[in-house]
This record gives sequence, structure tokens and C-alpha cells, in this order.
Amino acid sequence: MSEQDRDSRHNERMARKKAVVDEKIATAQAERGVLLVNTGNGKGKSSAGFGLVARALGHGMKVGVVQFIKGRSDTGEEAFFRNQPGVSWHVMGEGFTWETQDRARDVATAEAAWDVARGLLQDPSIGLVVLDELNIALKYRYLEADTVVADLLARPTLQHVVVTGRGAPPELVEAADTVTDMTPVKHAFAAGIKAMPGMEW
Amino acid sequence: MSEQDRDSRHNERMARKKAVVDEKIATAQAERGVLLVNTGNGKGKSSAGFGLVARALGHGMKVGVVQFIKGRSDTGEEAFFRNQPGVSWHVMGEGFTWETQDRARDVATAEAAWDVARGLLQDPSIGLVVLDELNIALKYRYLEADTVVADLLARPTLQHVVVTGRGAPPELVEAADTVTDMTPVKHAFAAGIKAMPGMEW
Repeated sequence: MSEQDRDSRHNERMARKKAVVDEKIATAQAERGVLLVNTGNGKGKSSAGFGLVARALGHGMKVGVVQFIKGRSDTGEEAFFRNQPGVSWHVMGEGFTWETQDRARDVATAEAAWDVARGLLQDPSIGLVVLDELNIALKYRYLEADTVVADLLARPTLQHVVVTGRGAPPELVEAADTVTDMTPVKHAFAAGIKAMPGMEW
Repeated sequence: MSEQDRDSRHNERMARKKAVVDEKIATAQAERGVLLVNTGNGKGKSSAGFGLVARALGHGMKVGVVQFIKGRSDTGEEAFFRNQPGVSWHVMGEGFTWETQDRARDVATAEAAWDVARGLLQDPSIGLVVLDELNIALKYRYLEADTVVADLLARPTLQHVVVTGRGAPPELVEAADTVTDMTPVKHAFAAGIKAMPGMEW
């Protein structure tokens, strides 16, 4: 096939594709806040949430972040966003549960974190709420999924919410507008690379 | 099962889990930059890349971003990051290919974008390079995968790179350290919600 033929066939294919995409966009016209869930075992669940923090700030929105499981105290995302105007950042967790090994304390911590989250979910001036690693707190039943879903659905109409963490419960998936499963194809840990700043924390 | 039994069983399970996680972390000790590929049809590929921009900036790194396919000119991420100290942001694409419908022009645009990317990949002062939607340019063969992979592998030892976009080619997946397939479970478009600021752009 000549380069010219290839260009011509490509252009025809793209014209058909444009028609399909244009129609899809034209039919989606409801304006409301999106409940997004990032789950699965692969990398990208929290970082996609933090990318949306930047995106929302760029539109002049106010953003609230609650971290339910605190992995470490020196993350780049916290250092960067904590001092940005319009951001309220709450680190509520006390380490992964296999670090603390104290279920009763984990439940109390998760409940205190949910109180903070609920406050953000009742504040119409907040455009985006990120509930980082909330799925972990739900998976271990530190919080009841029904209560959490009810509070999420009662939020202001235009408020976006991102929930991250492995093992999103079915009740949350059902309630969500968009759900992505971050599926690992391969991971640098397996190649012997340690958790590097700017990449894993 | 009593609450106390549940706590006790949970704590035993967590102790075993902690041992496994600790060992995994202890054996991954190589310090080098990670080549991360975010692909698949789901939401989160680019936003996870932008989250890493924040993460890297929080560690005091310099960051370069090249956008190979420009969807729109008013994105929140560009508005937010363009004026942050330490960020060089390059919008090189001219719209999705089905918008331009001109293959020869798309190839020229992609090649100009790769020249900018190569400059960042040769600069050891840049800690993180984000090549947003590069996979699209590879998928349509606007750029040769072999050339791109060779330039990626020749970068400074500690530099991280994130490549995003659907349809990552096998050569790139093979060369990458970490690959995530963002798998769509459901999407708000299907529920009739339009592309909302702070969420999709």
C-alpha cells in the first residue's frame, strides 16, 4: 500500500470514528457531580485521584482530601498540595492495618475519618472530595458500606467524589457513576526496584 | 463469632500479612528511575500521570510534560500546573486524529513533539517526564516504537517516565518497569453525564 493510499484509508476511518464520538458526546448532557471509584490491584488508584485534585484546582474549585490509611508521613503529594490555596488535606489513618495490628483502634480511627469526610460531603463550596484508601476501611469493615454510600449519595449535586483503594465493595460500585479497575500488567517491585520518591510516594 | 474473636483473628491474619509485605519491600532495593505505562480503555491514565507530577514536585523534583494529543485548550491540569515552579509543560498535539483527518500533518506534529520529549529525556535535571497520550501516536504509527523505546531506555538512571494512552504497543510494555491496564467497569458517559470540569478535563 502506498503512503498516499494509507493516508486516504486512515482519513476515511477517522471520519467514521469522529461521527461515532460526536454522537456519543452529544447524547451525554446531564450536568452533575461524578462519583468515581478507582479500585483493583494495580498502580494508579491514588495518583489518579491526586491528578484530579490538580485538575479541579485549575478550574478554581475547592478540594478536600481525606486519607484513611496513612502509609507514611513524608509523601510528595501531601508536601505539594497541603499548602496550595483551596485545598484542605486530612491525614486520618495511622498506617496500614497490618502495621497497627489493633482492630479496635483501626475502627475508631476510621470512624473519626468518616466524620471529617461527612463534613466535606455536606459542604457545597467543595467541588471535589478525594477519599483516599476508603475502600480498605470498607473491606475490613471498619466502616459500614451502607452508611458510607448513603452519605455519598446525599452530597451536593455538582460535587465530584473520588474513592480509591483495593477491593471496592459491591454497594459502592453499584452507586458509582464511573469505576475503573487498575489491573496490574507488571510492577517495578517484581524487578527489584524499591519504592522510589516521586513514583510510589 | 464474638467481636473479641474477630479482633483476635484479624490481628493474627494481619501479622502474617505484615511479614509478607515486609519481606517483599526488603528484597526490592535497586534505586533507579521507573518507566511507567498507563494504558487500557478506562478512566485514570492521564490523571494518574498528573498525580505523579504533584508527587514529584513535592519531593523538589523538576518535571516535564509533553501532551501528544491535545483534546482541548482549557484543561484544569494545564491551567494549574503550567505556572508551578519546576514544571515545563508542552502541548504539542492538535486534537484527536479523527478531528484533524490529515495523517501527514499528524505525523509531522508527532515528530516535533518527540523532539521536545527527547530533549527532556536527555536532561538529568528533570526527575519526571510525562508523555501524555504518546501511546496514541504509537498506535497510529505516527512515531516508530523502536525509536521511542531506544530513547526512553537511554534516559538518565534516576529519571522517572510516565507514558499514557490506550493501546500501548508490545515493545513499550516489554521495556516498561510498571504497566497498569485501566480497565473500565462503568463510565458516567453511559449514564448520560456530560464531560464535567474537574473530572474529565
